[in-house]
Amino acid sequence: MSEAIEAMGGHSIALTVAYDGRPFAGFARQPGLDTVQGRVESALKTVLRREVETVGAGRTDAGVHALGQVVSLDATGGEPDATRLLRSLDALTGEGLVVRDVRLARAGFSARFDATAREYRYRIVDGVVPPLFLERFAWHSAAELDASAMRLAAACLLGEHDFKSFCVADSAEGKPTVRRLDAVEIGEEEHLGERCLVVRVVGNAFLHSMVRVIVGTLVEVGSGRRDPEWVNGALQACDRSAAGPTAPAHGLVLHAVSYPDDVWLRGA
Amino acid sequence: MSEAIEAMGGHSIALTVAYDGRPFAGFARQPGLDTVQGRVESALKTVLRREVETVGAGRTDAGVHALGQVVSLDATGGEPDATRLLRSLDALTGEGLVVRDVRLARAGFSARFDATAREYRYRIVDGVVPPLFLERFAWHSAAELDASAMRLAAACLLGEHDFKSFCVADSAEGKPTVRRLDAVEIGEEEHLGERCLVVRVVGNAFLHSMVRVIVGTLVEVGSGRRDPEWVNGALQACDRSAAGPTAPAHGLVLHAVSYPDDVWLRGA
Repeated sequence: MSEAIEAMGGHSIALTVAYDGRPFAGFARQPGLDTVQGRVESALKTVLRREVETVGAGRTDAGVHALGQVVSLDATGGEPDATRLLRSLDALTGEGLVVRDVRLARAGFSARFDATAREYRYRIVDGVVPPLFLERFAWHSAAELDASAMRLAAACLLGEHDFKSFCVADSAEGKPTVRRLDAVEIGEEEHLGERCLVVRVVGNAFLHSMVRVIVGTLVEVGSGRRDPEWVNGALQACDRSAAGPTAPAHGLVLHAVSYPDDVWLRGA
Repeated sequence: MSEAIEAMGGHSIALTVAYDGRPFAGFARQPGLDTVQGRVESALKTVLRREVETVGAGRTDAGVHALGQVVSLDATGGEPDATRLLRSLDALTGEGLVVRDVRLARAGFSARFDATAREYRYRIVDGVVPPLFLERFAWHSAAELDASAMRLAAACLLGEHDFKSFCVADSAEGKPTVRRLDAVEIGEEEHLGERCLVVRVVGNAFLHSMVRVIVGTLVEVGSGRRDPEWVNGALQACDRSAAGPTAPAHGLVLHAVSYPDDVWLRGA
């Protein structure tokens, strides 16, 4: 495959990366800390035998998991093919991080700037019995949650809005806070025999902690502490203090990132 | 509720217990070791303020998980009702163990001897990409597995047979090794976005490590190292060395235990 690519005059590599957020000090590379980006770049450096700079689709916070994080890098000719790269990387990334897929993309591809949509899933186990197998992947709400009330409340968040109320206050200063949400769905899932509520949020881009504040706000409604209409008021207020608390990191998974079809190289 | 029960002249309590097998030195109480039974009895002693002896439906080995283990004990009158007992126990059992349900059964009920069927599930992630979210709950087979070949091989295990080939050799010495299997099914599941193969085994009772040897044997077939017919030969041999290896503990879950309806007290 590498000969064919060389003939095409340059390309990029896109890794689909899954991780358990717990051991990591977040996604973004930081000197002296175990981060997702740091771990991936170090494995790439060993396999490709050169310095590598990557770009991630979503800068997940410490404790947030990913199933389908996408990490991109520029490639040179003469590098191992996708399957060989996948095997080599998985032997090197260490516990809590798995490279699930390696694809070839056109030269200049950016996992961040070419992304058209990001999908997050947040899982909650409600009721008196705490999660056991899902303990590391779901928030426990001792209060039982009314999923219908949460659905009603979530409807006002769909579409393009200023989500200033739904992000870490400091991070929004002087920056645009308008985003577009294409889905905020509340469903039920069963994993390893345990039932959970799942909040599925799809949007073009997200502010810092935005999904976690949305979930914390919807749980206020689900538990009966607030009426569904309160969420629309919180949205209109454009003030972090108007919304609910930030749900804990460990319930959140960056599930998938979407790209236009034409970024991928044929046969990759 | 306790007044009503007292009038009935004695009863038993059945706890449904889930646990992550990793921290435990198995199910059975052992002095100085962290065991499931030891942990449950210690919590019961605190709540009921008396010495308690319990009986478990299945003596799971170290590292084996449970979603629906059942633990029984004799009760006296004047003890807390089921809901209060559930809450009190879950505050005391510590990490890795959850009491999911408390039911009242007739006097003399035994989680072990009254059980009519036990269901185990064994999960396997196959292929080059190792499990991430399922890492603690699924065995990784780098070889891709042929589920159809495994199904074909499993058919001969259904019904009543001498399963001497499928248990830890020492444990079978001089003891009856005939058991009845009602289901050995190979299916596919998806948990937290990861796909896995699941081997579902239902039977009246199980020998030591029996499910793990069955799975280790079926994986020999699924990976193409053996033909499906080889499993029938292994069964007929009545010799542990004729069957495949013992699959690792962490893929196995005691999923559920069945009892006749009439063991439960009405309104419990």
